[in-house]
Amino acid sequence: MPEFRQNLATQDWVILAPERGKRVSDFARREKKRADLPAYREDCPFCKGNEEQTEAAVYARPEGNSWQVRVVPNKFAALQPQLATTRTMAGLFLAAKGFGIAEVVIEHPRHNLNPALMKAGEVAEILRAYRHRQFEIGKNEKITLVTTFRNHGPRAGTSLEHPHSQIIATPIVPPHVRYPMQLAVQYYDKYGTCVYCDMVNEERRQEERVVIETDNFVAFCPFAARSPFETRIYPKKHKASFVLVGNGEIDELALILRDVLGRLYTCLNDPDYNYIIRSAPIGDEDTRHLHWYMVIIPKVATPAGFEIGSGIYINTMPPEDCARKLRETSPAMGT
Amino acid sequence: MPEFRQNLATQDWVILAPERGKRVSDFARREKKRADLPAYREDCPFCKGNEEQTEAAVYARPEGNSWQVRVVPNKFAALQPQLATTRTMAGLFLAAKGFGIAEVVIEHPRHNLNPALMKAGEVAEILRAYRHRQFEIGKNEKITLVTTFRNHGPRAGTSLEHPHSQIIATPIVPPHVRYPMQLAVQYYDKYGTCVYCDMVNEERRQEERVVIETDNFVAFCPFAARSPFETRIYPKKHKASFVLVGNGEIDELALILRDVLGRLYTCLNDPDYNYIIRSAPIGDEDTRHLHWYMVIIPKVATPAGFEIGSGIYINTMPPEDCARKLRETSPAMGT
Repeated sequence: MPEFRQNLATQDWVILAPERGKRVSDFARREKKRADLPAYREDCPFCKGNEEQTEAAVYARPEGNSWQVRVVPNKFAALQPQLATTRTMAGLFLAAKGFGIAEVVIEHPRHNLNPALMKAGEVAEILRAYRHRQFEIGKNEKITLVTTFRNHGPRAGTSLEHPHSQIIATPIVPPHVRYPMQLAVQYYDKYGTCVYCDMVNEERRQEERVVIETDNFVAFCPFAARSPFETRIYPKKHKASFVLVGNGEIDELALILRDVLGRLYTCLNDPDYNYIIRSAPIGDEDTRHLHWYMVIIPKVATPAGFEIGSGIYINTMPPEDCARKLRETSPAMGT
Repeated sequence: MPEFRQNLATQDWVILAPERGKRVSDFARREKKRADLPAYREDCPFCKGNEEQTEAAVYARPEGNSWQVRVVPNKFAALQPQLATTRTMAGLFLAAKGFGIAEVVIEHPRHNLNPALMKAGEVAEILRAYRHRQFEIGKNEKITLVTTFRNHGPRAGTSLEHPHSQIIATPIVPPHVRYPMQLAVQYYDKYGTCVYCDMVNEERRQEERVVIETDNFVAFCPFAARSPFETRIYPKKHKASFVLVGNGEIDELALILRDVLGRLYTCLNDPDYNYIIRSAPIGDEDTRHLHWYMVIIPKVATPAGFEIGSGIYINTMPPEDCARKLRETSPAMGT
């Protein structure tokens, strides 16, 4: 029987409509795994040894040519840092120059790797780069929001093979981010608690959608998942911004992130996916009503006219089934 | 230079970031046109002669076996009409049984056709079917929103070849629909006008994004288009609901819709696309602050982590350029 389910925080609805006889393998990627790529490509600007093909690094650890993780300005940036932020009118319509900061996080010297197959320590270095850049970029007074994300594979919007993530910082907090903040304030004023803390605790209490839990983090397929195998990682303790994550927590987060990505890799045959770190806007780091988290979305479904028109997503595999499957799966082995 | 642009009605932002040297042909579909499909397939439940493979029609014009357009209950419906609408709690989380109405509009007896290639009179019959079903379904007191849409091709979420659209009616008005309504009320209270009327008049005044205009309708690539060749058709006179469109207007709308789809067909090589009719919720048909319209979204871009995370879409071809290209293009010839 199909079911409507509401996301407690955003109040978005999904329709859970399991298709009869649909199996996990129906969602798996059909192409072969990407492990056959070469370890180095002469024409790849992100491969070790080709550093002169990018602009100067804004971050590298360790520094210099022995880098493990390297952050560079995005050569094909959709936004540019030298522009003004003044809003202007084009007749009745509001516009602004495309001010913003766009960076690429080169996650590893090697071309044919991805976080699902890295050592946990390597994943931790990536997360540290995210945190450091978000913090540094946040010092720019014109920036209000930093979005950190990873596109894996063409269905997730990238054709670049070399393992990388992106950071885009904007002078605008858009409605898509602002509306859930307003709802979170209303929830806080009504119940005196952070809606995300309550959601996390309820998911842990109901337990059946939890994939894995550590001291400080929990990964689950959410009650109102928009698509099969959507998985989220939340800090258990209240914390609005990713920049506030401590060093020990980063190591633990790396373990759980690598574990979840490794299970998805095994389960769905190295699926294309997006992951996003959602974190409070600049200046709201200490707020009581927001909560940073990571959302991982394997690209196993195509949003169609109904989803675009109504914003209601039809999900054909219950998160309970996806979580069970992920619990039963062994993470991919690193290389 | 990149630019932020805001949708006057929804207040969503897009980033216009034209890629150097990007040409229209880069957005065109690579596969060959779908005109080579057979006119009839024995295993297609929507082909004329195979009526017994679907449930009984809820609408057919003309009635009986000489139908030109036929509407049937969706055999693989995500929602079911016999369920209750009561909301229930799953712990802290809100849920409801999957009550709703899902129908398929079979647009033509022939298998290998689509609206871009139909006669205008045939397209008018499809639009009449939409209007009639939306009106009839709206009599159900449990229904609050009717979403009518068309998915064309696999990138748009359908693998069914036979020309068809869908109608999904829900007992819920989701935030994605409700938020713009709330903004429209605020705009009306502030300026005393419908924000969509103002937007349409401003697009007509600025003119450069207009593709085609008739007595009662205007088609344009909107100022804050989320992706290349997004095109919208609005009635010029204020009207909140599609059910209120008159018969003469339906004929005129069919002409302009077929014209726009035909231009996209030529320009982008029979692209995959979604179109959606956005119309006021049931009971709000006469409201002063809403305005029905059609949005046509060719699937020429892949939303990635940034779009999912921020709700800000990066559009790589200005709507001004897309509109000019569409104006210069001849619509596909019907068959």
